[in-house]
Amino acid sequence: MDVQALMDIATAVSKLKMYPYFDVCNYILMCLMVREDNAGSTGGVTFSRKHPFACWVSSMLLCFASSIIANILVGESPLLPLKSNQDILTATAVWWLINYCPWDLVYKLVKIPPIKIIIYCLKEVQRVHKVHHGVHHAMKLFPGSYHLIVAIGVIKGAGYYYMRIAERLVRGIWSPSSHELLVPGFVTKSCALATILFILERKGIVDAPHELIYFGVVMFFINFRLAAVMFGLHDPFLPFENLICSVFFGGMLDALRKALGLGSEETTAKKND
Amino acid sequence: MDVQALMDIATAVSKLKMYPYFDVCNYILMCLMVREDNAGSTGGVTFSRKHPFACWVSSMLLCFASSIIANILVGESPLLPLKSNQDILTATAVWWLINYCPWDLVYKLVKIPPIKIIIYCLKEVQRVHKVHHGVHHAMKLFPGSYHLIVAIGVIKGAGYYYMRIAERLVRGIWSPSSHELLVPGFVTKSCALATILFILERKGIVDAPHELIYFGVVMFFINFRLAAVMFGLHDPFLPFENLICSVFFGGMLDALRKALGLGSEETTAKKND
Amino acid sequence: MDVQALMDIATAVSKLKMYPYFDVCNYILMCLMVREDNAGSTGGVTFSRKHPFACWVSSMLLCFASSIIANILVGESPLLPLKSNQDILTATAVWWLINYCPWDLVYKLVKIPPIKIIIYCLKEVQRVHKVHHGVHHAMKLFPGSYHLIVAIGVIKGAGYYYMRIAERLVRGIWSPSSHELLVPGFVTKSCALATILFILERKGIVDAPHELIYFGVVMFFINFRLAAVMFGLHDPFLPFENLICSVFFGGMLDALRKALGLGSEETTAKKND
Repeated sequence: MDVQALMDIATAVSKLKMYPYFDVCNYILMCLMVREDNAGSTGGVTFSRKHPFACWVSSMLLCFASSIIANILVGESPLLPLKSNQDILTATAVWWLINYCPWDLVYKLVKIPPIKIIIYCLKEVQRVHKVHHGVHHAMKLFPGSYHLIVAIGVIKGAGYYYMRIAERLVRGIWSPSSHELLVPGFVTKSCALATILFILERKGIVDAPHELIYFGVVMFFINFRLAAVMFGLHDPFLPFENLICSVFFGGMLDALRKALGLGSEETTAKKND
Repeated sequence: MDVQALMDIATAVSKLKMYPYFDVCNYILMCLMVREDNAGSTGGVTFSRKHPFACWVSSMLLCFASSIIANILVGESPLLPLKSNQDILTATAVWWLINYCPWDLVYKLVKIPPIKIIIYCLKEVQRVHKVHHGVHHAMKLFPGSYHLIVAIGVIKGAGYYYMRIAERLVRGIWSPSSHELLVPGFVTKSCALATILFILERKGIVDAPHELIYFGVVMFFINFRLAAVMFGLHDPFLPFENLICSVFFGGMLDALRKALGLGSEETTAKKND
Repeated sequence: MDVQALMDIATAVSKLKMYPYFDVCNYILMCLMVREDNAGSTGGVTFSRKHPFACWVSSMLLCFASSIIANILVGESPLLPLKSNQDILTATAVWWLINYCPWDLVYKLVKIPPIKIIIYCLKEVQRVHKVHHGVHHAMKLFPGSYHLIVAIGVIKGAGYYYMRIAERLVRGIWSPSSHELLVPGFVTKSCALATILFILERKGIVDAPHELIYFGVVMFFINFRLAAVMFGLHDPFLPFENLICSVFFGGMLDALRKALGLGSEETTAKKND
């Protein structure tokens, strides 16, 4: 593929409109998350039949999670992301089709592997779009506070993981001991990485065409999502993390201290046990 | 009753000042809710004696619940509704009288059926007043986003049900599996209906004098409250809801599927079981 | 000591810069709180090794608790207090030193009694500084609403007690039945008292040089902190509180009623049992 063609594709990807296809894929995955979490905890489709309103509220919370949390963090109204009638109606239609479609057709359809993979890929494109917009917005709000820009970027890309605890509460489930802050997943980490890359690009430190960087990030996300779905690869950051943890966060020094017999009574558990 | 007299009453009702009588009735009912919830969970008046501060905070949270939640939702300070010294002092006086009055006089007084019924009726007038103001305010903030206007209307009229979970937390009780979103009650539904009526009126679709509509809504609320208190009528919307649920949210199709032997392993619980 | 010298000291104290020494002492105590709460609930330093990210987030939440909660209460962005790179980097350095320093040197150092006492004293100076700024800010936002000014003053001085429940949740621990609102501690009460004194001073009711009042409050806080650390004195307000509770909040009247045989079935527990 010659360079011009690559640039053309990259430009096209960076200018894609999210509505309707990409947003719909997001809504499908979020409604599936709610449905499958219900199925796991109470069995079958009972919950969506017994509590349709709570099911709808929690699905909407996940569908618009990233914007809701970001708005709360920057001190704006958490209702603003739900303002658009078009978005809410689309999300509601998806929610209905996933949960109540006759003969469960839509649910069965989106679980067919090739369709599932396409939905996952489109979702990753939408994720990068959101992260990029979040970085753009946060750089205006908190210029120079890079840790806050990273936080907003991560929330924009992986907000639904952080909404999980509230969304479950709406469904009457309270799970304080399993949330994203406690055990950040691969999506959180890669969104942080993408945000840092976008910041470096805006600061002029990474000197490449914007479209190419954007396209590269999209490819990275799709690549790892496919690896996760198809080969069960879970977290390629884990070895680096364990290294960092053992150098900076105790592992090595604890081991040294233990070897020297100074701290034998203390636990020196490693991160990945 | 001739039409003019009816219009005069309706106009008078729609221009009623909430302070002091109607607000005091609201405060009485909210403080009773806290007191009786305590009595239910720990027995007797122990809690108000052991934790007067937490008891006061949770009573205030309920007294001003609708404005506090509405302010959080539109991104304003949750302290603003507590700004008025007059309101806070009135609510505090009511709280003291309900919880600590010598010989429990006030508590016994407000539990006398005729007085209780009057308080309930005044509360319903105040509820409609709040819903109406909420709709007015929300239509400016979110023009065209009717779902958000309904949400604000419901919060304004039934906010204390949604504050329950936070108010209980202040008293050290955590009840994640019983909240209003999971099982919306009659008040939530009728507030939603009243909000829709007010929206239709403002849009010019329902073409009747404003005072008459307002008065009609007040009468509706008082009527169903009296029915609930006196005859134990609980939720007149339930049959309609069950109908809607069975048509749109699975009931019928699940039954059909079951009958055809396609989905026998799935649970097909109905809403009202 | 002559009056001029006292005034000079008082003026110097009221103009102290908080960064770096006083802020660092605050960060040390907050990181210790997280570390020791972890040690208490899971034993040893395991948590900081297994979940460094959650440990960092919860330490930061406590370090900046007062500003975060105050911002939420006045409807501003909760991220603003974290905007400064300098503050975040300092707090992060302190967090690393407390949790992961080789041979636990820093932890052992700050636990040496004389150093611990100095840190406690500096923290009290910083607390008064924060309360004073909170009162100043709140008097502009809510003029005349003295209960709200007191609330902001208390949050500014004792915010970390109110953040506890959220900070624990970040570490996967949910403790709804033990929080500051349920059993307000000495710090909450003395911050409320200091806030009232600052309000009286601003209103011209307490007519003394500002520096002297400020210095007096600092001395009061240091004095009671030292009394608590060295002699185990816990809450000098308790006798007054019990008196007030027994006069206004049931104690006496309950006892009277019981003596007269009117309310023997009700529990009449006192506040301090």
